[in-house]
Amino acid sequence: MATIDSVQADLYRVPLASALTDSTHGEMVDFELITVRVRDADGAEGLGYTYTVHAGGAAVHAMVQHYFADLLLGRDADEIERRWQDMWWLLHYGGRGGHVTSAISAVDIALWDLKGRRSGLPLWRLFGGYDPRVPVYAGGIDLELPLPELLAQADRFQDNGFRAIKMKVGRADLAEDVERVAAMRDHLGSTFPLMADANMKWTADQAVRAARALSDSDLFWLEEPTVPEDFTGHARVLHEGGVPVATGENLHTLDEFHRAMSESAVSFPEPDVSNCGGYTVFRKICALAEAHHLPVTSHGVHDLTVHALAAAPNRTYMEAHGFGLDAYLAQPLHIDDGHAVAPELPGHGVTLDFDRLEALRA
Amino acid sequence: MATIDSVQADLYRVPLASALTDSTHGEMVDFELITVRVRDADGAEGLGYTYTVHAGGAAVHAMVQHYFADLLLGRDADEIERRWQDMWWLLHYGGRGGHVTSAISAVDIALWDLKGRRSGLPLWRLFGGYDPRVPVYAGGIDLELPLPELLAQADRFQDNGFRAIKMKVGRADLAEDVERVAAMRDHLGSTFPLMADANMKWTADQAVRAARALSDSDLFWLEEPTVPEDFTGHARVLHEGGVPVATGENLHTLDEFHRAMSESAVSFPEPDVSNCGGYTVFRKICALAEAHHLPVTSHGVHDLTVHALAAAPNRTYMEAHGFGLDAYLAQPLHIDDGHAVAPELPGHGVTLDFDRLEALRA
Repeated sequence: MATIDSVQADLYRVPLASALTDSTHGEMVDFELITVRVRDADGAEGLGYTYTVHAGGAAVHAMVQHYFADLLLGRDADEIERRWQDMWWLLHYGGRGGHVTSAISAVDIALWDLKGRRSGLPLWRLFGGYDPRVPVYAGGIDLELPLPELLAQADRFQDNGFRAIKMKVGRADLAEDVERVAAMRDHLGSTFPLMADANMKWTADQAVRAARALSDSDLFWLEEPTVPEDFTGHARVLHEGGVPVATGENLHTLDEFHRAMSESAVSFPEPDVSNCGGYTVFRKICALAEAHHLPVTSHGVHDLTVHALAAAPNRTYMEAHGFGLDAYLAQPLHIDDGHAVAPELPGHGVTLDFDRLEALRA
Repeated sequence: MATIDSVQADLYRVPLASALTDSTHGEMVDFELITVRVRDADGAEGLGYTYTVHAGGAAVHAMVQHYFADLLLGRDADEIERRWQDMWWLLHYGGRGGHVTSAISAVDIALWDLKGRRSGLPLWRLFGGYDPRVPVYAGGIDLELPLPELLAQADRFQDNGFRAIKMKVGRADLAEDVERVAAMRDHLGSTFPLMADANMKWTADQAVRAARALSDSDLFWLEEPTVPEDFTGHARVLHEGGVPVATGENLHTLDEFHRAMSESAVSFPEPDVSNCGGYTVFRKICALAEAHHLPVTSHGVHDLTVHALAAAPNRTYMEAHGFGLDAYLAQPLHIDDGHAVAPELPGHGVTLDFDRLEALRA
């Protein structure tokens, strides 16, 4: 038994090197980082973290600090499924998704990291192991980048080893989206995987129209064409718009992923391990996708995600984007000829520089 | 324009006079109360509140205090729909339901109260007005009460003016549920509306079996037979179990209510105005139910809810249960021969004794 001896949650506001823009979240200049460190009675420690766009981090922090810490102390860190259920049901009233899932995710990731460190296994091996080399794409957050800068960014992505790129769409004038995507397709060549992300900008009708208008650019997928809960709309974009659809970064329960898949509303489920319920749920989503004959992509926190996708036979391109965390990592993820490589360190292998983070405490 | 001048959120832990019990939440000895007071530049004030079972209140408080207050200051309190969207989208990432909806609810209720106070109208009139006398039922939270005490409680409920009662089911042995419900039916007479609430205890198969086993007791409805997101299970209980089904206290978006209704999974939608999104969403749920030819009941905070149901032509029995707040109200809701009567005071008319609450600050 690995008795949980301490649970520490911390909240930081991490600045971005340059502002990011998309159709819904506007300009992003920083993000909130919530870290969770779980230590067992033997002194072993696991690290988990989640983040928010703009706001909400103080609530996630309060959930872990005020409620989960007491719930976890003295319990067995090895029974992760059980601790997950304990957390889910403690905050079920008023919860059942939303920020609770981010809070659980951070703890769940810390518990898996602890299990990996105790056993000496990297998580992708602990999870069963498939292939440490995971295809990866560069997630540009670039709706307001002028076209020449967009193309220059694409060149930089390729220089950095990426062989697939996603760009933002959802400008006020659809013709501008069409022009920018066409320019990227032309720049990248006809076989280069190019995705586009609308960040919930459109109604279903607008999204179907956009999908058709973009069809000449042969998108690998169109992401979040409408609000996430509009599965009927997503299914229309997929079937009437004639483009594969990705969604998932704003789905926070296994049940929501099940609905999306069973309603034929998604081609590329894209859970975020830091807001879908941690590795525990991410891996169930992989299994669910496999049962639906679907590949799995991802959102956010690629340093953590790579282990889950490196263990999934149905993994496709993992998202990588620079949410400013690289500067605080001992060892940023290695990208090699279009692939991220899951590290061989025990656990997830991510080490944060908490001394430097201290200046960013919120 | 009613400019918002201050937003104050407070968190209390309110003890219950005696412990309550149900099949999922176990023994409840207190609840968290989160109050929100919104004041405009003219000095008018609106009051809103929400609550949690066991835990989560500190997160709801953090959402209002850390994020919504800044968002609301200087904005027009009269544009409630717009403020609602502002809050929803500020905490959309990681949110989209869950505790965000409780936080929004508390603010939304305060804004409606402020609008009512400014206009001199009680909310049920401001909402359109239907009938201030709303049929009401006593919600017993009594799974572990010995049978004689259960029956004595039913007598007290009737002495206090109630003409409909709900009891808890979901004991380890279904035969005990059947026996207790039959005893209550016998005690109350064949025409007395008697509901039963399983609080998500069962699998769908268990719930269908329970519904059939309870059929002789002619339940008015069976509530939350399975986990809330199991709409397929709810539909089975309704159609195969042959009993009307109530659910909604754990649904936190209009979309979830829409799914429940469109999938024929609910006979009695039961939104909680303090966790479904406030009066703004509660009233949309009433309209949605009307379009589905369904009545609307409610969960919790009856002092607030009465206004929404007094304006809804499809309102059925409102839940009343003593979550310990009565002791802190200037004027608890009046129950008269099976009806709650919406007050004629401006706004919702509820005044909390903040001086006495001070001792309960969490």
